[in-house]
Amino acid sequence: MAFNLLNAETADILAIGGTLIMGTEQKRGALVIIGGAEDREGELLVLREFIRTAGGVKARIAVMTAATGYPREVGDEYTDIFERLGAESVEVIHTEHRDDSEREDSLRIVKEATGIFFTGGDQMRIVNFIKGTSLDKVIHNRYEEGAVIGGTSAGAAMMPDQMILGGTSVANPSVDAVSIGPGMGFLPGILVDQHFAQRGRLGRLLAALVLEPAVLGLGIDEDTAIIINGDEFEVVGRGAVTVVDETTSTHNNLEGLLKDEPIALCGVQLHILPHGYRFNLKTHLPRFVEKGKG
Amino acid sequence: MAFNLLNAETADILAIGGTLIMGTEQKRGALVIIGGAEDREGELLVLREFIRTAGGVKARIAVMTAATGYPREVGDEYTDIFERLGAESVEVIHTEHRDDSEREDSLRIVKEATGIFFTGGDQMRIVNFIKGTSLDKVIHNRYEEGAVIGGTSAGAAMMPDQMILGGTSVANPSVDAVSIGPGMGFLPGILVDQHFAQRGRLGRLLAALVLEPAVLGLGIDEDTAIIINGDEFEVVGRGAVTVVDETTSTHNNLEGLLKDEPIALCGVQLHILPHGYRFNLKTHLPRFVEKGKG
Repeated sequence: MAFNLLNAETADILAIGGTLIMGTEQKRGALVIIGGAEDREGELLVLREFIRTAGGVKARIAVMTAATGYPREVGDEYTDIFERLGAESVEVIHTEHRDDSEREDSLRIVKEATGIFFTGGDQMRIVNFIKGTSLDKVIHNRYEEGAVIGGTSAGAAMMPDQMILGGTSVANPSVDAVSIGPGMGFLPGILVDQHFAQRGRLGRLLAALVLEPAVLGLGIDEDTAIIINGDEFEVVGRGAVTVVDETTSTHNNLEGLLKDEPIALCGVQLHILPHGYRFNLKTHLPRFVEKGKG
Repeated sequence: MAFNLLNAETADILAIGGTLIMGTEQKRGALVIIGGAEDREGELLVLREFIRTAGGVKARIAVMTAATGYPREVGDEYTDIFERLGAESVEVIHTEHRDDSEREDSLRIVKEATGIFFTGGDQMRIVNFIKGTSLDKVIHNRYEEGAVIGGTSAGAAMMPDQMILGGTSVANPSVDAVSIGPGMGFLPGILVDQHFAQRGRLGRLLAALVLEPAVLGLGIDEDTAIIINGDEFEVVGRGAVTVVDETTSTHNNLEGLLKDEPIALCGVQLHILPHGYRFNLKTHLPRFVEKGKG
């Protein structure tokens, strides 16, 4: 049986494992990966957890608007929300050209941030404007030092080494159902898709898994997030996270497959994990932590 | 390794295993279950296999229009197609009330049929107009005697003991994502959903599997069919069949779950099987039969 029911005390200790851990060892930050369309007006369940993970009322947030074509509006909206949740500071970094990613003021904001949040839009813009620049370097440095990286929709898709650029929703898996390109490299060996159940994207996630060396596919629903801390993530929000584990796969037909032919894929393991469930990225085992107990 | 590559001879012997088998033992007929929107103008790949399975140029087909609100038009269309494919006879049975299912002429047509084909429409109409009537009894008798039962869309959904009546597509699994009722009982222990990839129905199939005692869910794409012969089915057509095997499941949260809460489901096995793949309903193992070999 893969499940351990921990009591609230143990769960709380795990929950503060991220950036706040005491000890001599420097610890990489958490990742908060949101499937898009997160609530921005009601209880803010998902964005609340991003700010909490990034330091709560001591959080210093940098909002990265690279993905969106409406950087001012989107930047203002997240600034309002994060200030409403009590973040100590919120600064917006607009990058509409690669040159913007060399600006000293932007680098300084990131160097002081405890949380770096990527908005939605087009994930290609994030990679085109930021990947390989000085801004990219300081973001990764801050992540290694313990800052939390958050992102929604395009800001979620860009997290892995290889990211899903686009493709057909509600289709069976085929090579031309999905296009893939280099991502921002926060999450090796994993593929992320967003708006997952809402847009029926299982087919394209499976196709991407067969095509890429990644062994784990994470389909994140709208208004739902995973918070990755160390080897484990927790699901937060109204939807669910679909985990596709390709390591158990017994067969695929990739060899000799042409572009418009349907992919065959046998024996992958599937987990549907709603709020409160956790998944270990090393052991590939899910578990449920009962809250408010003990 | 779950795969055996058989040569064409072995495959051919299996392929004629259905209604044409020689021997002393009476054999139940095949089921041809089509995911809807099958080609009716081009190569007729899927309908062609239905007629082939039902006896080829010796096939005597009964077309059941119970599901559709346009019984004449739909009946005429399938009659044209099945005659074009060379069926020996095609007769249409309209049942627009339960009384129609007691008509002697309809019973006689079914008693002489080698293939009984259910059109698309609303699966509730099939159950309401036919289940428990004399027509139901003779259809099941003919099936036990070796006649092939075929159906597309609603005619596919009605095959199991418990059928999916409707529900939300492209949503994560929840109790209110799916409604279920008694089906026509040709396929115990299995749930069938159709238009599967095209309408993003994984969520509702998973929800149905958690709610019902069925252990295997089959999601059949449009213009795609499974042909069940004995313990094995073969996939035919342009799309794929998604097999969800719940027997490997390690956990679900059904106990105490309320209607609008997301379902958790861990450790189910998933197979995506395109044209030419087979799946054993007893062992739950897929395999690929290479054609035109040996």
